[in-house]
Amino acid sequence: MRELVGVIGAGSWATALAVLLAKKGCRVKMWARRPELAEEINAAGENRHYLPGVAVHQNIEVTADLERTFWKAGVIFFSVPSHAFREVVRQSRPLLANDVIYVNTAKGIEETSLISMSDVFAQEAGTELLQKYAGLSGPSHAEEVGRDLPTAVVAASHQMETAEYVQELLMSESFRVYTNPDLLGVELGGALKNIIALGTGIAEGLSFGDNTKAALMTRGLAEITRLGVIMGANPLTFAGLAGVGDLIVTCTSRHSRNRRAGIAIGKGSSVSEALELVGMVVEGVRTTRAAHQLSARYAVEMPITAQIYKVLFEELSPGTAVNNLMSRGRTREMEEVARMTVKLLNNN
Amino acid sequence: MRELVGVIGAGSWATALAVLLAKKGCRVKMWARRPELAEEINAAGENRHYLPGVAVHQNIEVTADLERTFWKAGVIFFSVPSHAFREVVRQSRPLLANDVIYVNTAKGIEETSLISMSDVFAQEAGTELLQKYAGLSGPSHAEEVGRDLPTAVVAASHQMETAEYVQELLMSESFRVYTNPDLLGVELGGALKNIIALGTGIAEGLSFGDNTKAALMTRGLAEITRLGVIMGANPLTFAGLAGVGDLIVTCTSRHSRNRRAGIAIGKGSSVSEALELVGMVVEGVRTTRAAHQLSARYAVEMPITAQIYKVLFEELSPGTAVNNLMSRGRTREMEEVARMTVKLLNNN
Repeated sequence: MRELVGVIGAGSWATALAVLLAKKGCRVKMWARRPELAEEINAAGENRHYLPGVAVHQNIEVTADLERTFWKAGVIFFSVPSHAFREVVRQSRPLLANDVIYVNTAKGIEETSLISMSDVFAQEAGTELLQKYAGLSGPSHAEEVGRDLPTAVVAASHQMETAEYVQELLMSESFRVYTNPDLLGVELGGALKNIIALGTGIAEGLSFGDNTKAALMTRGLAEITRLGVIMGANPLTFAGLAGVGDLIVTCTSRHSRNRRAGIAIGKGSSVSEALELVGMVVEGVRTTRAAHQLSARYAVEMPITAQIYKVLFEELSPGTAVNNLMSRGRTREMEEVARMTVKLLNNN
Repeated sequence: MRELVGVIGAGSWATALAVLLAKKGCRVKMWARRPELAEEINAAGENRHYLPGVAVHQNIEVTADLERTFWKAGVIFFSVPSHAFREVVRQSRPLLANDVIYVNTAKGIEETSLISMSDVFAQEAGTELLQKYAGLSGPSHAEEVGRDLPTAVVAASHQMETAEYVQELLMSESFRVYTNPDLLGVELGGALKNIIALGTGIAEGLSFGDNTKAALMTRGLAEITRLGVIMGANPLTFAGLAGVGDLIVTCTSRHSRNRRAGIAIGKGSSVSEALELVGMVVEGVRTTRAAHQLSARYAVEMPITAQIYKVLFEELSPGTAVNNLMSRGRTREMEEVARMTVKLLNNN
């Protein structure tokens, strides 16, 4: 494969994807907003700030020139923080074409509009381009993909051919790509799991144990699924790589920024101290605010999100929050299961 | 509550439950097969071998006299390894009564008969006593319950009153009990997750990363669910505490014996060396053999179980097994999801 690929963004995941594609023979242009960063990566042959220790392949050229990144590319990867996604698509609008595939890796819900990344894309790029759009999600820390450790992800698109193109493009010996037509479910799973990772991080910071963490993750998955289903996603997507898979890695990996921010908060840091400590974007903070509003709009019970929201924005003490979570809730596990089954039956 | 309780077994989980019950005011008799162990625990006020560091409450008396353990007890907890369960129920048969509640914590599938623990109980105790029987499962390492770290579990029974009795009996500030009528699903989740923990342990021992582990856990949950559904369980039970919750804790906790055995195997130990290293019962080894046979009987694809089976019993190298797992399988995540949905619809 000698595809020309553009990668918009130069963070850790953008870099890992660029390296993966370059190793497969693609020629990659990677766009960095700051020209200094572009030059630095080109000169060092390494993205020392965001993905240290991984050689930036010779097939990759880093540039701050957006037009150059799009030039003749058959596929464009957007790999920027979710709050920057709208702006970057808007900026790219004159360069978009309907014979190009667009892949987005940002995991979040837009805070002001409460819409998904694909809806943001449709608004900025036009709904007809949505057929060419895929979301890429799943348990995939850049640090490990950069080191070729076996990883499995999901490419989701309304258009099966689009998802299959992305699958074919990225698939390697150590990188497996599954397809899934439930774009919304995949997007919501990837975004909402960050809230739960903040929560389990907080529990960890408070020195609670693995039992507590597993209970929070299980109940967290249930509330994420609940919101997703009411918004139109397939509940079983949340049992897949973009749901429970991504949740597990985000709540347990040492690479997880959301987990690390949560741990710092649990240990007594303020929210702003915790974010400073992590140093990179912690998606879960904005997502908590968005999900908190969505749970009200759709009248969905999201007890974990509600407590994390209070810790982040209303100065509730983390210890009180975790205790609130462990001492409440339904006592019949199957009540909820039964409700979800009914919902599933009604959808089919 | 001043209930008289008998706990059959003196391992780590038996001890943690006895302590939990004693703290709630129950008077507990705990049965140890070996009189020396009973004496040792009584003398030390601690189960130094199986649950060091946790005070054995004064309301607990350890005895090697089975009849004394059953005497006037309103509820009996069986907490022995799954392969010992049939024998211990058989031995208890003359002491069983139909106004007593029986709770089982053993997580396994009987190797010779391939039946669940509740079916073993019914065969030995009589089917009429099954109404009085509950399975207790979920993410609950004894080491943490013994230290009062917040924990949530599931009590499952065909008879709702039985599950609710167990819930009421055990519930405390730091120990939450949910009820679930899907006894088979809860039993299978608890048993089968140990196979996946061996697998992720092996991947860890081989120095694979968190992405690999999360992918194995997600695909593992899917294959466990697949077998469970075909055997008659509710697929959504596997999304709950006794499914994904227990899976997470078993695959990630430092307390997990199955994980530790897997890590040793991944690092190059033979199976028998790994079991010796862990020193306590590693349920997953027997369960892998049983599940491997069940997958053939029900014609259910269980690729992870199949590879672990080959590592344990056919000398396949662990590295080859993990590579086999990461380089195979469906590429459309939703094919499987769709099949499960259809199955669910047909069941309802």
